[in-house]
Amino acid sequence: DFRFHFLDMHPYDQAVYFLNQPKENRMKIYSYLSPLEMAGLMEHIELYDTEKFLTEMDPRFSSAVLAEMATDDAVDVLNEMEKDMVASFLTIMDNTAANEIKKLLHYEEKTAGSIMTTAYVAIDKTQTVRDTLKQLKKDAPEAETIYYLYVVDKDKHLVGVLSLRELIIADEDERIEDIMGEKLVYVSVGKDQEEIAQMFKDYDFLALPVVDFRKHLLGIITVDDILDVMDEEASDDYSKLAAVMDVDRPEDSPIAAAKTRLPWLIILLFLGMFTASLIGMFEDTIAQVALLAAFIPVIAGTAGNTGTQALAVAVRGLATGEYGKGDKLKLMLKETGTGLIIGIVCGVVIFGVITIWKGNFYLGVLVGVTLMITLTVATLAGSLIPLIMEKFKIDPAVASGPFITTINDIISIVIYFGIATAFMNLLVE
Amino acid sequence: DFRFHFLDMHPYDQAVYFLNQPKENRMKIYSYLSPLEMAGLMEHIELYDTEKFLTEMDPRFSSAVLAEMATDDAVDVLNEMEKDMVASFLTIMDNTAANEIKKLLHYEEKTAGSIMTTAYVAIDKTQTVRDTLKQLKKDAPEAETIYYLYVVDKDKHLVGVLSLRELIIADEDERIEDIMGEKLVYVSVGKDQEEIAQMFKDYDFLALPVVDFRKHLLGIITVDDILDVMDEEASDDYSKLAAVMDVDRPEDSPIAAAKTRLPWLIILLFLGMFTASLIGMFEDTIAQVALLAAFIPVIAGTAGNTGTQALAVAVRGLATGEYGKGDKLKLMLKETGTGLIIGIVCGVVIFGVITIWKGNFYLGVLVGVTLMITLTVATLAGSLIPLIMEKFKIDPAVASGPFITTINDIISIVIYFGIATAFMNLLVE
Ligand SMILES: [Mg+2]
Ligand SMILES: [Mg+2]
Ligand SMILES: [Mg+2]
Ligand SMILES: [Mg+2]
Ligand SMILES: [Mg+2]
Ligand SMILES: [Mg+2]
Ligand SMILES: [Mg+2]
Ligand SMILES: [Mg+2]
Ligand SMILES: [Mg+2]
Ligand SMILES: [Mg+2]
Ligand SMILES: [Mg+2]
Ligand SMILES: [Mg+2]
Ligand SMILES: [Mg+2]
Repeated sequence: DFRFHFLDMHPYDQAVYFLNQPKENRMKIYSYLSPLEMAGLMEHIELYDTEKFLTEMDPRFSSAVLAEMATDDAVDVLNEMEKDMVASFLTIMDNTAANEIKKLLHYEEKTAGSIMTTAYVAIDKTQTVRDTLKQLKKDAPEAETIYYLYVVDKDKHLVGVLSLRELIIADEDERIEDIMGEKLVYVSVGKDQEEIAQMFKDYDFLALPVVDFRKHLLGIITVDDILDVMDEEASDDYSKLAAVMDVDRPEDSPIAAAKTRLPWLIILLFLGMFTASLIGMFEDTIAQVALLAAFIPVIAGTAGNTGTQALAVAVRGLATGEYGKGDKLKLMLKETGTGLIIGIVCGVVIFGVITIWKGNFYLGVLVGVTLMITLTVATLAGSLIPLIMEKFKIDPAVASGPFITTINDIISIVIYFGIATAFMNLLVE
Repeated sequence: DFRFHFLDMHPYDQAVYFLNQPKENRMKIYSYLSPLEMAGLMEHIELYDTEKFLTEMDPRFSSAVLAEMATDDAVDVLNEMEKDMVASFLTIMDNTAANEIKKLLHYEEKTAGSIMTTAYVAIDKTQTVRDTLKQLKKDAPEAETIYYLYVVDKDKHLVGVLSLRELIIADEDERIEDIMGEKLVYVSVGKDQEEIAQMFKDYDFLALPVVDFRKHLLGIITVDDILDVMDEEASDDYSKLAAVMDVDRPEDSPIAAAKTRLPWLIILLFLGMFTASLIGMFEDTIAQVALLAAFIPVIAGTAGNTGTQALAVAVRGLATGEYGKGDKLKLMLKETGTGLIIGIVCGVVIFGVITIWKGNFYLGVLVGVTLMITLTVATLAGSLIPLIMEKFKIDPAVASGPFITTINDIISIVIYFGIATAFMNLLVE
């Protein structure tokens, strides 16, 4: 009865239910379900939770569960574990499944190989539509998708592709080679997952074949896994802008969270000390007009903000592949223009506010002019730095954010105190 | 010959080629292609470019192109245009197509209605598998996807769903109602696109049916459009963290770019003036120990950084739906702990640096203690503010970033100068 209601749910809902159970209930669920049923549920559990559950099961059962999972998902789970634990699972496991898994285990993270599955449907170009439909009835339960059929020659070279839609429409007597598509879009096994996601977005595919350098079909990537890739890449860019190594998970302990966040904080702290010693050089200027100090945060802050904005535009543009060759120069020119406009507007606004609010005309001019120059430079820097990083094959999203902020801190302080020191006599009335 | 080579490419590649042509070549392409062929290409062009091309075509041709496009994509294109231009296109257009489009035009942006298509396959529960396969041959060319078949009763209520995979496996004589799935996952027409994307990620669907409040089937959402939604939402969150209203496009003019960026900059500038006047209140303190000013940026900056980190964790967690009820309290406790650890580590580091580098023990204690308190509070604030915003149904990603920075500026300055003023006698040797 429990089995009946439980299995009536979608595997994702089963997973949600399962995750909310205490250990004793989970142990019962293990005993009620078959490895195949448990595998369906496990495919919908976040990677970092799976190890815990697999180790609390009987090892024989958990090996069977891994064997029944979609091979790509099983590989993801095993990749999160210690090497010796992986070896032990693979030893108890059924040989066929273990071999499929071993084939995929050695591919590098975030490449086509690491997100592909070997559970595709391959057909021969000489068969008829009728034969193929018959074959599908047999292959369907095991395959990850049957909506694309991949045509291979006898050496497993990929020679064509056919969608199930095309197959259904075709006459039953036609031969595959006469109706298959020969313009193939495929990816090589080492290709970066972010570029693959971009291809899915551009071509609207549900699956893409993965080949080696000789065009042997190795596996396919399905769109459901691309959704996860996009989510991962977006989190990645987002966390880099926020200067965290990796967004920690809600379940992480404070110590684990602090560990992922501290490295950048400490690096930035030292960069900040550099800024501090720079200001320290203007100690005399500040001693004479202490009010100057009051505007440090607003100048540095606005420079940081405009720099981050320019950075975000450049990084998103690079990530979505919007920039061609000449576009980068155009971007620089555009950002210079944008920076000038922003500088002039903000400079005039703050000049007005300080002149009226503080009744100090010369201070207003000083802060206004500083802002004008700083914001132009800061905007340009914000777009230049990711472009330079990209040139040197560094992921432009990596911590450009905080670096930009620090660089802009330095630029703004030099300009601000430079001008202030030069025109000191005007400021001390 | 041109037609032959051109149409041999995938529509996306056609679009890339088309976009790189000067106007005179584009005009030739319009004359070579049929509306249907042009429509395939147009579906792969970025929305903000389409208007330009549709208006340079002959109006009769462009209306025909719109009519041939996937209805959801045509609607997206029309939604970017002026109302009277839309009306004029719809007037010349073939009636059936115009009516389909009108049905979708009034749905609110970023809801299920705005991303669904009406080109789905609906079947009757009393038909047999054989009949359905026959129907599919007829429906396939028009349908957006035939991989899910939606079973409706005579009043168009959604009563079941069947995948083409299940249909292919089934015996030809079986009736649909005996093999269809009755546990339906569907979305209502007003549902937010971000939550829908989350459902696609959770359930690994290729399409989801959209219903009204009486469960009438209105349309379906396909996974290819969800890829675009995820991209849009990721850009959105990213730009908000960077305090831009919207990431401007590389082609935007500097004036357009400045317009999207200035609003936040000006708001933050005024908030910054508040910070400035706060520091101004400590003018005497600064006049006595000018060196104090040197540490303002590093303290405020580090507080801003840790706040942004905590914010990023909270916003990503909220966006991916990782938080249940009790999890929010847990998050607060965790962030308090994390903040304390970060505060202690950074405080000790900066104490060491200042004591050794400046040889000023009391200044080291002051900055160290300030950092310790500030970072704890800043971390907590960083996670609290998005949670509060969410409580009040404000998108937590909206500019939390810059607000957090400003709030943390204020907190850090009050703590820093408060302590400094209280222990002034220790600081002036
Ligand atoms: Mg993998
Ligand atoms: Mg990458
Ligand atoms: Mg697309
Ligand atoms: Mg998969
Ligand atoms: Mg998957
Ligand atoms: Mg990236
Ligand atoms: Mg669409
Ligand atoms: Mg739409
Ligand atoms: Mg939203
Ligand atoms: Mg998924
Ligand atoms: Mg669509
Ligand atoms: Mg589309
Ligand atoms: Mg969002």
